[in-house]
Amino acid sequence: MLSKNRIKYINSLKIKKYRQLHQSFIVEGAKSVLELLDSDFNIEFVLTTQEFEQKYASILSRHNTIAETVTLQELEGLGSFQTNDSCLAVAKTKQNDFLSPEKSEYALVLDDVRDPGNLGSIIRIADWYGIKKIICSNDTTDFYNPKVIAASKGSFTRVSLFYTELTSYLAENAGSEPVIGAFLGGESLYDFKFSPSGGYIVMGNESNGIGSTVEKFVTNKITIPRVGEAESLNVGIATAVMLDNLRRQL
Amino acid sequence: MLSKNRIKYINSLKIKKYRQLHQSFIVEGAKSVLELLDSDFNIEFVLTTQEFEQKYASILSRHNTIAETVTLQELEGLGSFQTNDSCLAVAKTKQNDFLSPEKSEYALVLDDVRDPGNLGSIIRIADWYGIKKIICSNDTTDFYNPKVIAASKGSFTRVSLFYTELTSYLAENAGSEPVIGAFLGGESLYDFKFSPSGGYIVMGNESNGIGSTVEKFVTNKITIPRVGEAESLNVGIATAVMLDNLRRQL
Repeated sequence: MLSKNRIKYINSLKIKKYRQLHQSFIVEGAKSVLELLDSDFNIEFVLTTQEFEQKYASILSRHNTIAETVTLQELEGLGSFQTNDSCLAVAKTKQNDFLSPEKSEYALVLDDVRDPGNLGSIIRIADWYGIKKIICSNDTTDFYNPKVIAASKGSFTRVSLFYTELTSYLAENAGSEPVIGAFLGGESLYDFKFSPSGGYIVMGNESNGIGSTVEKFVTNKITIPRVGEAESLNVGIATAVMLDNLRRQL
Repeated sequence: MLSKNRIKYINSLKIKKYRQLHQSFIVEGAKSVLELLDSDFNIEFVLTTQEFEQKYASILSRHNTIAETVTLQELEGLGSFQTNDSCLAVAKTKQNDFLSPEKSEYALVLDDVRDPGNLGSIIRIADWYGIKKIICSNDTTDFYNPKVIAASKGSFTRVSLFYTELTSYLAENAGSEPVIGAFLGGESLYDFKFSPSGGYIVMGNESNGIGSTVEKFVTNKITIPRVGEAESLNVGIATAVMLDNLRRQL
């Protein structure tokens, strides 16, 4: 029987302030929890239905995971935003460790991406295209938001994020490396040659694009060529197209 | 003052059965309504705030649009799923007219795309890449669902959809044209040459991909190369990457 304190604790983790206070976050659903168990995140506990616990008993015991069996009603009653018929985990957040690309590596830079669904989608796309580091402006939405974790479809376990003030970060780290920014009126992505020495690919806010202070550090303004008439592409879609063009070349 | 009948009528159009009965659908928000006014859709009426009506008076009168001024409270009270602080239109749906690609044209084919957000996103992406025709399986989500219209960001006015039984459609229409399907284990998209003579690009269901009956008509199984470890890409993302590769070549 799920204790009132535990219910209260889990509900508090839907709010950023309490995630920061407890340094913990929620992971929901079978696919995401299985990826979590297979990652280097520290797990506080897992709530599982009897069915899930029996099916994955060996995995749960291998990781010495504290698992509590709950009913489907209890799991649904936790008021998670998505349908969840199997399990929920609480894990410890990681420190906001400094990240920068190695030689010949590309890192993604997000300037004020606000929508949790977009951030989760970008993490999944980065994981598909082998991008392991994302540098985020401080006003980019929180990595540990349950909607980000859910939309990343397990990729949150393989891609690292570092939140920082982007202008000083780029001033101190970009050096002579290319800082490639997605703009609506730049050079055609189809003509652009990505340098094999690595660098940064910058994507901007959903409404306003890349801010003027970050724009100053952009060495190459790149545009995804448009054939039709749509005004813009969603930032997740644009990220996928940029990374696909990078990977076709390198 | 908005009549009870009108409120009831608008609310009924959130349900597919009533959209089909009345052959009408809802368009919400300034951007989408302005694109609607600029299209060949027949508009039944527009509900606008005083502010929107004053700002766009010339556009509204040019189109002989029946406009009713409503308060912000009335507009919000219509229970639309998105924030809407300016206007809402009701327009007539179009007939489900037959579509097929012309010589050198590519049409998109959707086999059972269920999520309204994904369909709206695909329509926006098609519009960006100059794809004007989408052939949908009968179980693909309804074009006139308010969530599809909203996610298309106005592109619903420029892209046409035709719902049909896909296997007989492809049997009767594909002929010798390429039917290119997105699969997880096919030929690399980066090595594939799109024929300048046009054809079909098929995208499948969110969970199950392209169904086995439609698969039989696929002449080329294509895969988006993966560098990292994410299990899959969202169908909207995959559509964008497919069309981007098509447009880079043609």
